[in-house]
Amino acid sequence: MVETSVAPTPLLKDELDIVIPTIRNLDFLEMWRPFFQPYHLIIVQDGDPSRVIKVPEGFDYELYNRNDINRILGPKASCISFKDSACRCFGYMVSKKKYIYTIDDDCFVAKDPSGKDINALEQHIRNLLCPATPFFFNTLYDPYRDGADFVRGYPFSLREGAPTAVSHGLWLNIPDYDAPTQLVKPRERNTRYVDAVMTIPKGTLFPMCGMNLAFDRELIGPAMYFGLMGDGQPIGRYDDMWAGWCTKVICDHLGLGVKTGLPYIWHSKASNPFVNLKKEYKGIYWQEELIPFFQSATLPKDCTTVQNCYIELSKQVKAKLGKVDEYFIKLADAMVTWIEAWDELNSTSDIPNGPAK
Amino acid sequence: MVETSVAPTPLLKDELDIVIPTIRNLDFLEMWRPFFQPYHLIIVQDGDPSRVIKVPEGFDYELYNRNDINRILGPKASCISFKDSACRCFGYMVSKKKYIYTIDDDCFVAKDPSGKDINALEQHIRNLLCPATPFFFNTLYDPYRDGADFVRGYPFSLREGAPTAVSHGLWLNIPDYDAPTQLVKPRERNTRYVDAVMTIPKGTLFPMCGMNLAFDRELIGPAMYFGLMGDGQPIGRYDDMWAGWCTKVICDHLGLGVKTGLPYIWHSKASNPFVNLKKEYKGIYWQEELIPFFQSATLPKDCTTVQNCYIELSKQVKAKLGKVDEYFIKLADAMVTWIEAWDELNSTSDIPNGPAK
Repeated sequence: MVETSVAPTPLLKDELDIVIPTIRNLDFLEMWRPFFQPYHLIIVQDGDPSRVIKVPEGFDYELYNRNDINRILGPKASCISFKDSACRCFGYMVSKKKYIYTIDDDCFVAKDPSGKDINALEQHIRNLLCPATPFFFNTLYDPYRDGADFVRGYPFSLREGAPTAVSHGLWLNIPDYDAPTQLVKPRERNTRYVDAVMTIPKGTLFPMCGMNLAFDRELIGPAMYFGLMGDGQPIGRYDDMWAGWCTKVICDHLGLGVKTGLPYIWHSKASNPFVNLKKEYKGIYWQEELIPFFQSATLPKDCTTVQNCYIELSKQVKAKLGKVDEYFIKLADAMVTWIEAWDELNSTSDIPNGPAK
Repeated sequence: MVETSVAPTPLLKDELDIVIPTIRNLDFLEMWRPFFQPYHLIIVQDGDPSRVIKVPEGFDYELYNRNDINRILGPKASCISFKDSACRCFGYMVSKKKYIYTIDDDCFVAKDPSGKDINALEQHIRNLLCPATPFFFNTLYDPYRDGADFVRGYPFSLREGAPTAVSHGLWLNIPDYDAPTQLVKPRERNTRYVDAVMTIPKGTLFPMCGMNLAFDRELIGPAMYFGLMGDGQPIGRYDDMWAGWCTKVICDHLGLGVKTGLPYIWHSKASNPFVNLKKEYKGIYWQEELIPFFQSATLPKDCTTVQNCYIELSKQVKAKLGKVDEYFIKLADAMVTWIEAWDELNSTSDIPNGPAK
């Protein structure tokens, strides 16, 4: 196919849930009202369940606190992190929709270079509905975008692309830096608007940030487990990284695409670098072994579902990363529990126990 | 290293040659005068050697026509294409400098979004002098650029990057499309300025265009052979693609980086799509076998020089692509001749026979 143009983007109003992990009142939604109000929200309340989270009027939402998670999952609730935004993946599990968009509550509407408010959700939907190009690099970026195409030398057999499973959006203002970089460059702000969406090539890992992220739940949902972080765990702030590494390996195996670039959100607050350092420091040295592990991980051909792939990956985590730290043995078990819980909740059309609202 | 900032860019005035293949007077240099005049030019005149090519006053250049090429290379001149811009690689061979920038004579100075003239050469030099990041993807693009860095989750052990061997620049106005795409979208113009430089990840091939390209001759020069194209050959317009595939495989093997993105030039003329179709049509179906060949090509560990790698690759081309068409047997032999000629010209400090001027 020489030319593929994007059809006018359907809003996917009834096919997408917005998942928000939070510990505070959701005043940030006011700024998003024009873009988010038509959609259903799944709010995952972290921390003290007795605290009341206020949601601005007019939004359609369900809210789950820790008591809800424990009631719904029973003993399997152990796989859902507490006191860490990793708890958001519970929202992916209880959603009944095809698509998920997840956003942090310190992210606001950014402006494009012309000064126009960026509808981040619309751009994510566009990214997800349009194919990805993981098998060969296109130097003019997204070949499906208006005004662009595949360049000379791009094999014609690859021009139909692959289904897009993940759309990773970026951040203006506060960049997503680790604690050491935050400490060294406390005043650095991201002001560069790069007008591009690109596919991360097959075989290449990337640091997936959960702040502004959309994915196709049917294609890749069960791999979007944010791991064991926060309360009672030796690390934090690696939840999205973990999900990103697992997801990319499985997308590569299944022939699915992962995109990064547009849309930008405005990230308002840098988290405390000293607190972050405490959460991250084990991750910072563990990742030196985790990255080579994921770079060389291969899945057997007979793993044809995300669940199969994920269970297989959990075995490899246990066998190979268990030597790095016993934490990874616990994490590998939690990966299995996550899949069991996912399948339990997603095999029937109703959630066993309704959410608080 | 947490932060790496780019030192004020040295101009590399005495370390870089600009190579221009042409069949016409080089009036296009007038527009480039502020940027190119300090540098030495190597002009490779294609076609009728009796024709006189006018070069605007004030430029320092040497010019080689077909007679010069034949005289200097003798029987080995058979590896240099005739009546095709592939002849430019002769200029890479006779250069004595560390860096090469090559540009087509229908490429003009582009403007950035603020309306300022883009000094393409300066950006290429910046790209080449600054490390690349082929082993892991950085979502905020070039981490060494002012205002950017490595994002959370980027392994610290990889933050020193790899030496950059190639800087592939892009084109505003006429995009580099193949003949079928030109035919289908005759009026498409590239108007999108994407403010990014990125490293093409290890293991990923890309379509390298020779229109606006810089490289480190010492690091990768002998791999920059533009093949057998044009007069007496069954294809054209695959010269730069061929060089790109070979170069990328060898860069990946040797741990060198390849960047793409900025700078843009203004590409003024679309070549004739009907003529291009005639040149390209064999390449269009051959590339369906060439890409998988290069994607799976591996080089033995004991290939530690570009020359060794290239000779080894020529053997694989002969063995595996010789079955696709006998043209590739001839091309494999020409690859060997190219290396012999390269080594001959580059083992002494002088060119055996001086150029015409």
